[in-house]
Amino acid sequence: MTNLQSSALLTDLYQLTMLQGYFDQGMDDTAVFEFFVRRLPPKRGFLMAAGLEQALTFLENLHIEPEELEWIKTCGRFSREFCDYLADLRFTGDVHAMPEGTVFFADEPILRVTAPLPQAQLVESRLINLLHFQTLIASKAARSVLAAPDKLLVDFGLRRAHGAEAGLLAARASYLAGFNGSSNVLAGLEFGIPVYGTMAHSFVQAHDSEELAFEHFARAQPDNVILLIDTYDTEAAARKVVALAPRLKQQGIAIKAVRLDSGDLVTHARKVRTILDEGDLQTVRIFSSGNLDEYTLGDLLKRGAPIDGFGVGTHMDTSADAPYLDCAYKLEEYAGRPRRKHSEGKATWPGRKQVYRRYEANGNMAGDIITVEDDRQEGEALIRPVLRQGRRLNPAASLEEIRQHAAEELARLPANLRNLGEEPPYPVTIAPALEELARAVDRTLLQS
Amino acid sequence: MTNLQSSALLTDLYQLTMLQGYFDQGMDDTAVFEFFVRRLPPKRGFLMAAGLEQALTFLENLHIEPEELEWIKTCGRFSREFCDYLADLRFTGDVHAMPEGTVFFADEPILRVTAPLPQAQLVESRLINLLHFQTLIASKAARSVLAAPDKLLVDFGLRRAHGAEAGLLAARASYLAGFNGSSNVLAGLEFGIPVYGTMAHSFVQAHDSEELAFEHFARAQPDNVILLIDTYDTEAAARKVVALAPRLKQQGIAIKAVRLDSGDLVTHARKVRTILDEGDLQTVRIFSSGNLDEYTLGDLLKRGAPIDGFGVGTHMDTSADAPYLDCAYKLEEYAGRPRRKHSEGKATWPGRKQVYRRYEANGNMAGDIITVEDDRQEGEALIRPVLRQGRRLNPAASLEEIRQHAAEELARLPANLRNLGEEPPYPVTIAPALEELARAVDRTLLQS
Repeated sequence: MTNLQSSALLTDLYQLTMLQGYFDQGMDDTAVFEFFVRRLPPKRGFLMAAGLEQALTFLENLHIEPEELEWIKTCGRFSREFCDYLADLRFTGDVHAMPEGTVFFADEPILRVTAPLPQAQLVESRLINLLHFQTLIASKAARSVLAAPDKLLVDFGLRRAHGAEAGLLAARASYLAGFNGSSNVLAGLEFGIPVYGTMAHSFVQAHDSEELAFEHFARAQPDNVILLIDTYDTEAAARKVVALAPRLKQQGIAIKAVRLDSGDLVTHARKVRTILDEGDLQTVRIFSSGNLDEYTLGDLLKRGAPIDGFGVGTHMDTSADAPYLDCAYKLEEYAGRPRRKHSEGKATWPGRKQVYRRYEANGNMAGDIITVEDDRQEGEALIRPVLRQGRRLNPAASLEEIRQHAAEELARLPANLRNLGEEPPYPVTIAPALEELARAVDRTLLQS
Repeated sequence: MTNLQSSALLTDLYQLTMLQGYFDQGMDDTAVFEFFVRRLPPKRGFLMAAGLEQALTFLENLHIEPEELEWIKTCGRFSREFCDYLADLRFTGDVHAMPEGTVFFADEPILRVTAPLPQAQLVESRLINLLHFQTLIASKAARSVLAAPDKLLVDFGLRRAHGAEAGLLAARASYLAGFNGSSNVLAGLEFGIPVYGTMAHSFVQAHDSEELAFEHFARAQPDNVILLIDTYDTEAAARKVVALAPRLKQQGIAIKAVRLDSGDLVTHARKVRTILDEGDLQTVRIFSSGNLDEYTLGDLLKRGAPIDGFGVGTHMDTSADAPYLDCAYKLEEYAGRPRRKHSEGKATWPGRKQVYRRYEANGNMAGDIITVEDDRQEGEALIRPVLRQGRRLNPAASLEEIRQHAAEELARLPANLRNLGEEPPYPVTIAPALEELARAVDRTLLQS
């Protein structure tokens, strides 16, 4: 089969039917599209941009494979001349974007494509697909990072992430947002993300006794002994760990941690902590998992659960309390003229835009202004050139650099957003120059 | 990079650390794992099994690539002998499963793996990932099919699906559940799913006038003229369609439909229907999209909106009101002995199981019994052998056959479930033989 991740046909059919129309009319002037989120989902006070790296790689490699072209030719919807044109289609445009890890808000473009109309159009579906998902997950993951700032946080979500790519890219997005690593082995191989792993209940169940399972696991992974203790009876298992520890110590093996995965985690963690401490295992950490998210993390820590690290899975990798963003990739200019959509509830701001951010004296974010590109405002310009004529201007930022940038962004959030509050909303203003441009476009539309 | 979809390392690290333990202890007796959903999510009265085809392909092709093996060797966690063993690892086990498109309920296994313990363990993460997602989406899509049984339903969800594979497999899962097709071109190429496409707002915006955009599109896609009419003013655009139709007719082009994508769809559809009818365009259909799901579909139809087809996107492809299933893949037997997990709130039924379904005289589903495999009950046995010693017993079912089976399943749902009600819940009983087995396992655990 065709390569799923790079296929230009992982797109909506209407991109191709529109391209046939553009082709017939010779409409290949420069178009400007911007990707933005129309409004923040419920329970989100801010978002974190992510997915740019994969988006740029997609654009740099855009082409249609021979077998894909064959399908287009034989499906009966497109002209032969148009198919010949598609065979040579590449992305030759420019991209401006906010760096990954940047905090952003509603109506602020995080990516702008400037390219011949057919190219900018064709890539819409996959660009949205890539930017939407990682932004969704980074924004969700950042909330756990803020809720449990000093804890070890590991992505455990692969199994219930929505498919293979979601599993892989959720590991990336959560890591850049501040997680310490992922259980996902391929994320280690592809992105160098630290991978973490313990044992499953099946390992315990497959053995005739829990003690034996613990001992066998410790011998197999002497540098990484994390024992899952809730298969049958959590506190009984903790006592088995205490009994096992001296024997392992004689073999030079130290138990690193135990993992809790069910029941009331506060109660179990307290009891287990006491059992471990009384068994002279003060250095053994408690790690927990099981239906966790920023709300349960915050609650566990507020209630004083002696837990040192968390595996956060399904709720994060599906962004369960807000599983999608109301995002769009909209035409803002074509052939030198700004454009605007007027659909009810979905009107857009026209033209090439820039976002300026001002800061308080203490470094906290104070407010943003969205304006047209050439209307210089005070503050930091967040949107920067990243691709020119289809090629990157700079080498890809390393994931560690992005992660560092994201950490700095979270540190500069206004206090209410850092505390996961949504009120008062962060101030984002539309500059007079952008409002004037919108009115000018409206006047043109009325005359047409 | 490695092939994302078939990679054996798209797994949780703990599978590998456990495998090292199994390897060290020579634990490679036969294990039985089953995949099931612990409880139905809120707002779901039934689920529909999907994803088996991709799961079987994954198992048939299971192997570790040289570059992946290199990563395992150099990560410092595994012995050299174990790495040599991994190099030759293939899936040689058996699989039993419910056919795709089968309706099922909580605690009913839809897939059983019987294989040497390490093999059955290693595949856990990806098997769950594949079965969970398509089952999630087929179950969601079936609800739109039931809510709008006589309407054209098209999957529009690619852009906000969670990544590439989710976009592709959501098209498959919704099609098998009864959708008519997808906007996703790759779904056409990979699965032969009918693809549908219209135009985007950008096509209208890129033109100097809406009339011109409509005319250019009609000429470019003369057999598929569906015009998007909400970019500026919906009713005004409908009148432009009426004005354009005679001119197109002279060129032998018929307008097929118009699409509404915003505003109150009942009001707009009524007004547009009137404008079209008065303009002698009774045959032009109205298609609509924009934040639709089974609830809005039901509401639109109840309120008498004259809409002939729907593009259902984000809410379906993310299963937005229930974005994950509480599913698991659990060890039920090892080395001939049934096994059971006792974790609080997550205890499992041990042993190899079968589900029998009884029917009313009218053909409707009457109730299910879950029991041990060799305890023959009245009714239809839903779980069947599909893979033996790593090879399929039968050629893959065609997607059309699966879709037909799914349609028959939906037709046999009890009336309340067919009407998307959740109460009373469908009766699922645990047979005495299974309860007795669970007690026997508990007695063994107490003695150990």
